[in-house]
Amino acid sequence: MARNVAQKLIAAHLVEGSLDPGSEIGLRVDQTLTQDATGTMVMLELEAMGLDRIRTELSVQYVDHNLLQTDEKNPDDHLFLQSAAERFGLWFSKAGNGVSHPVHQAHFGRPGALLIGSDSHTCAAGALGMLAIGVGGLEIAMAMAGQPLYVSTPEIWGVELTGSLPDWVSAKDVVLEMLRRHGVKGGVGRVIEYHGDGLKQLTAMDRHVIANMGAELGATATVFPADDAARTYLEAVGRADEYERWEADEGATYDVTEHIDLSSLEPLIAKPSSPGNVVTVASVVGEDVSQVVVGSSANPGLRDFAVVGEILDGQQIAPGMSLDINPTSREVLADLISGGWLTSLVTAGGRIHQSGCMGCIGMGQAPATGRNSLRTMPRNFPGRSGTEEDAVWLCSPETAAAAALTGKITDPRTLETSHDLAYPRPTMPEFYSTVDDMLMPPLPPEEAAKVELVKGPNISKLPDFSPVEDDLRVPALLVMGDNVSTDEIMPAGSRVLPFRSNIPKIADFSFVRIDETYPQRAKDAEQGHVVIAGENYGQGSSREHAVIAPRYLGLRAVIAKSFARIHWQNLANFGILGLAFDDPADIEQCTQGDEVVLSGIHDALRAGREITAQIGGREVGLHHDLSPRQVDMILAGGRIPLAAQEM
Amino acid sequence: MARNVAQKLIAAHLVEGSLDPGSEIGLRVDQTLTQDATGTMVMLELEAMGLDRIRTELSVQYVDHNLLQTDEKNPDDHLFLQSAAERFGLWFSKAGNGVSHPVHQAHFGRPGALLIGSDSHTCAAGALGMLAIGVGGLEIAMAMAGQPLYVSTPEIWGVELTGSLPDWVSAKDVVLEMLRRHGVKGGVGRVIEYHGDGLKQLTAMDRHVIANMGAELGATATVFPADDAARTYLEAVGRADEYERWEADEGATYDVTEHIDLSSLEPLIAKPSSPGNVVTVASVVGEDVSQVVVGSSANPGLRDFAVVGEILDGQQIAPGMSLDINPTSREVLADLISGGWLTSLVTAGGRIHQSGCMGCIGMGQAPATGRNSLRTMPRNFPGRSGTEEDAVWLCSPETAAAAALTGKITDPRTLETSHDLAYPRPTMPEFYSTVDDMLMPPLPPEEAAKVELVKGPNISKLPDFSPVEDDLRVPALLVMGDNVSTDEIMPAGSRVLPFRSNIPKIADFSFVRIDETYPQRAKDAEQGHVVIAGENYGQGSSREHAVIAPRYLGLRAVIAKSFARIHWQNLANFGILGLAFDDPADIEQCTQGDEVVLSGIHDALRAGREITAQIGGREVGLHHDLSPRQVDMILAGGRIPLAAQEM
Repeated sequence: MARNVAQKLIAAHLVEGSLDPGSEIGLRVDQTLTQDATGTMVMLELEAMGLDRIRTELSVQYVDHNLLQTDEKNPDDHLFLQSAAERFGLWFSKAGNGVSHPVHQAHFGRPGALLIGSDSHTCAAGALGMLAIGVGGLEIAMAMAGQPLYVSTPEIWGVELTGSLPDWVSAKDVVLEMLRRHGVKGGVGRVIEYHGDGLKQLTAMDRHVIANMGAELGATATVFPADDAARTYLEAVGRADEYERWEADEGATYDVTEHIDLSSLEPLIAKPSSPGNVVTVASVVGEDVSQVVVGSSANPGLRDFAVVGEILDGQQIAPGMSLDINPTSREVLADLISGGWLTSLVTAGGRIHQSGCMGCIGMGQAPATGRNSLRTMPRNFPGRSGTEEDAVWLCSPETAAAAALTGKITDPRTLETSHDLAYPRPTMPEFYSTVDDMLMPPLPPEEAAKVELVKGPNISKLPDFSPVEDDLRVPALLVMGDNVSTDEIMPAGSRVLPFRSNIPKIADFSFVRIDETYPQRAKDAEQGHVVIAGENYGQGSSREHAVIAPRYLGLRAVIAKSFARIHWQNLANFGILGLAFDDPADIEQCTQGDEVVLSGIHDALRAGREITAQIGGREVGLHHDLSPRQVDMILAGGRIPLAAQEM
Repeated sequence: MARNVAQKLIAAHLVEGSLDPGSEIGLRVDQTLTQDATGTMVMLELEAMGLDRIRTELSVQYVDHNLLQTDEKNPDDHLFLQSAAERFGLWFSKAGNGVSHPVHQAHFGRPGALLIGSDSHTCAAGALGMLAIGVGGLEIAMAMAGQPLYVSTPEIWGVELTGSLPDWVSAKDVVLEMLRRHGVKGGVGRVIEYHGDGLKQLTAMDRHVIANMGAELGATATVFPADDAARTYLEAVGRADEYERWEADEGATYDVTEHIDLSSLEPLIAKPSSPGNVVTVASVVGEDVSQVVVGSSANPGLRDFAVVGEILDGQQIAPGMSLDINPTSREVLADLISGGWLTSLVTAGGRIHQSGCMGCIGMGQAPATGRNSLRTMPRNFPGRSGTEEDAVWLCSPETAAAAALTGKITDPRTLETSHDLAYPRPTMPEFYSTVDDMLMPPLPPEEAAKVELVKGPNISKLPDFSPVEDDLRVPALLVMGDNVSTDEIMPAGSRVLPFRSNIPKIADFSFVRIDETYPQRAKDAEQGHVVIAGENYGQGSSREHAVIAPRYLGLRAVIAKSFARIHWQNLANFGILGLAFDDPADIEQCTQGDEVVLSGIHDALRAGREITAQIGGREVGLHHDLSPRQVDMILAGGRIPLAAQEM
């Protein structure tokens, strides 16, 4: 049967299950990528598992998120991550080397490989014909320990590109067009595969832009074929020998199909405050702009900065404008210097920031209150910039440069007449700069075994959790309503995030948005406790802290009307029992402080789905939806102790 | 009589008093400089005075301190400062242009001028034969309003330089030698004037380095002659026409004398955690170093980065080392690119940060806990880096580069053999880059008058304070011990500083380190209140918030055994009565909550120094040391309303 690229990539890594959309499959993982914001917890998980050395083909720890060192926490984390990379056999990329995704592509991207990363934009690597998926931290830790990645078999969404892009329209506009058509949930449960004649015009870095923002469509992954564009790219980064052709078979079909005529596209922009809010730039020209930010994983290529440099060359940005430049990496910065583009950017009025994610994750370059900020970044959720009342727009480098020049949202096509500018097509070097020394290779096993983890005062161990007791007689400390989000269970933000590596400390923020007295009451209930909630408990972010921290305070079970998918998996991962009411109306009778009695839990879990509780003296029917694998986790105290037992 | 340069500069600006060391004199101010951390309060003071347009020759508002935009407060401040500069007729230098002192010298430095700045390193401008003094914000506001600067006539300290610097020893080592000899109080009450044959070797930027750290010696100012080095510099920045020769007369003498033989110097370093802790580098070689930071006002010249670039060219920094580079300014960055030095720094492993003060004032690049950080900066007070348990060393660019290379404190002279390196003497361009467009000139008066101040939600008006009442019958809300510092009255730090432009908000932190209940009790005491303290009340930082905030909460008078000098002046500036016990033992009888009665205050202040209070029913003799000018301030409600009346 003729297969498309996505099917070939999945088949090449399949170790469990079969390819029926929706059913669970296990995939062999070749490479992993972690960044510093999520990586500290992954490394603590490896420590807790007692892993000696990673079992992937290669794993890389990047430092690109928390680069603003206003106190010791971030530099202490950087040293911890370096020591953990040395201890467990990872590559390490220091602060200042650059954004994980483009650096990974340049140094480690390989057609046909399966990469998972604890960063949602890991999918960008699909540009080279890889299957690349963003996942949670514990999935990464398990893959490093040699376990497969479990996912639902996705639908494959074939997007045919034809024609060629007009002047002043670039790769960012292609993915903005996808978001304009389908919004931020259009790709859920799907792998997007681009194909067709229009591909010829798109370089590997153009494809990286498009694959990156597949995350904004909610897609599991984005896949491009590994064709001449991939070969040219691998040659330019000095790794031509790693090229391998991956293309769809003649006559391959897709579960869902789509067509984009590139020649019909025009400059697009996502309005505040969602990447799905896409309109034509032409429809919003004239809005005042006070900041333009160029950089991030969404437009990381040398070309994406060079085009801005050429537009601004010899010009001066608008008065009062802040033009913030985040060079992607040390290597892109070196090429921007040698191409002359950095001089253009600096003398035009740009502020050159250190290489990394920076403003894209609200770590710097926050805009002024209510002022429009145009960014070449992938996301503009409300407040993500760091400014509560922000107004962030997402656009191409061309549209960003036009606004920097004029101080207003400007259709870049009009620069041809207003500024007598021809569309710049910067000439890329035959070979990109590669600073190999900047990446620290894994230590040999005998040296690695001697490395001690370097933990600053704010980095603790992942606590040991014992398995849930066979009999529980504990209080219900909270009775909550519907749609409790992980932001309510464990807030993010600058007051809490600095304690990301310190569970005992961060635990004191558990549930405080719902009830400030919870952390103390949980500590007082020495035999443990449960919480009770309505529908869709644990919606929102996938953060693991929202289960680890309450577990640390003694949470043994959550009884709810229903659970959000990822949080429900996280509960099992950390040994907390997720139980659903047989009759949702039973929650009406529950009161804070009720004694909850669960007897013979272990046998009940092994025997079936039903379990009966006494809540406040009344008998209440409950059930669970745990797979046998998840029951094992619960009975082991979580996925980490289970893995430790198995190793 | 033969005069030295300092005496000529003072005489040329003298408008009140006579030149007897220790007596108060008034000096005409030509130029002012404000930065963003202190400038917002200065602009609010101008607004409160109702000033229409500044009366100095020129005033410049820089944005170089608070560049890390993690939320809206800093960018909102930047927009406010720009609007205030436009409104009051100042030049404006946007975020990203660079550190005030070297940018000011390049664009506005003029031999013979008197510059004051609300930044302690303003003294660096002495490099060009200027009299340049760092002062408090209200002094700047008053100078902008046309008033003289009042200072005590300083002693003139003549430092004769002879010989020439050995290889691997540079200007930083000269001022470190002064600190090694005299410590951080050696210059108090003095203007340092460098003279002698050794000057010939020192460029204007070398002199800038030495003059900058005069602040660390506690000197009022540092003065160099305006000789050929100043001429060469002004030619290189395209302002040869502003050169004017200022040299000491033949036979000029000094109040205090000193001699340094430059050829006897070797690389020096200030150990943690004081600039006065100076030892030879040779005596501390081998200590592990995890961070090197190059930049700041103390080593701001192109040469100071270029020499690091040449040492690191083609090399790689030590593994695990963070080499942080703060290019001084947009212009220095442009020259670093064109000279090829930036490429050397980037490919050797440097992290390039935006231009500004950054790590020098703890705004970024904080080091890891307890790890040694070598910096070319001027200060290493404990915790100033942002890391509570820091270990910051101060050294020359040569010594910094050597540590970056080896990972240990290294005498740079040993690189000749260990790395086969000749001492680099980078060739400076004949003309420095000057990006004139980056500085926004003052608006013409008619346009300026129309400008509205742009205030984000965190920027309030300076509150109006009414004069102290003629009769007070108010409670004593605090009775404190000796040596209460301004850090106890109004803490600094990242929790409080963001509210620097918002008195109502920052007032809630007043005295909380002493008594958390103070702010609320002060608000409850609607008729006002007093506080009582022991010796040396208000020691430490000069921050005006430590009087403005308690005044906002109703503080009318401080009764103490004695006062620290600057805080006592600040109390008068903002209309708070500072009264001293005739008999210090009287404080023993005072209790928190005592009613304090002062009657006929206005007449008593005009009549003499004595005033009698009732404290808790007992009669207590008090006195004040206010000058007639200060009595006028108190009776007007402070220096600002007094100035407003006079205008």
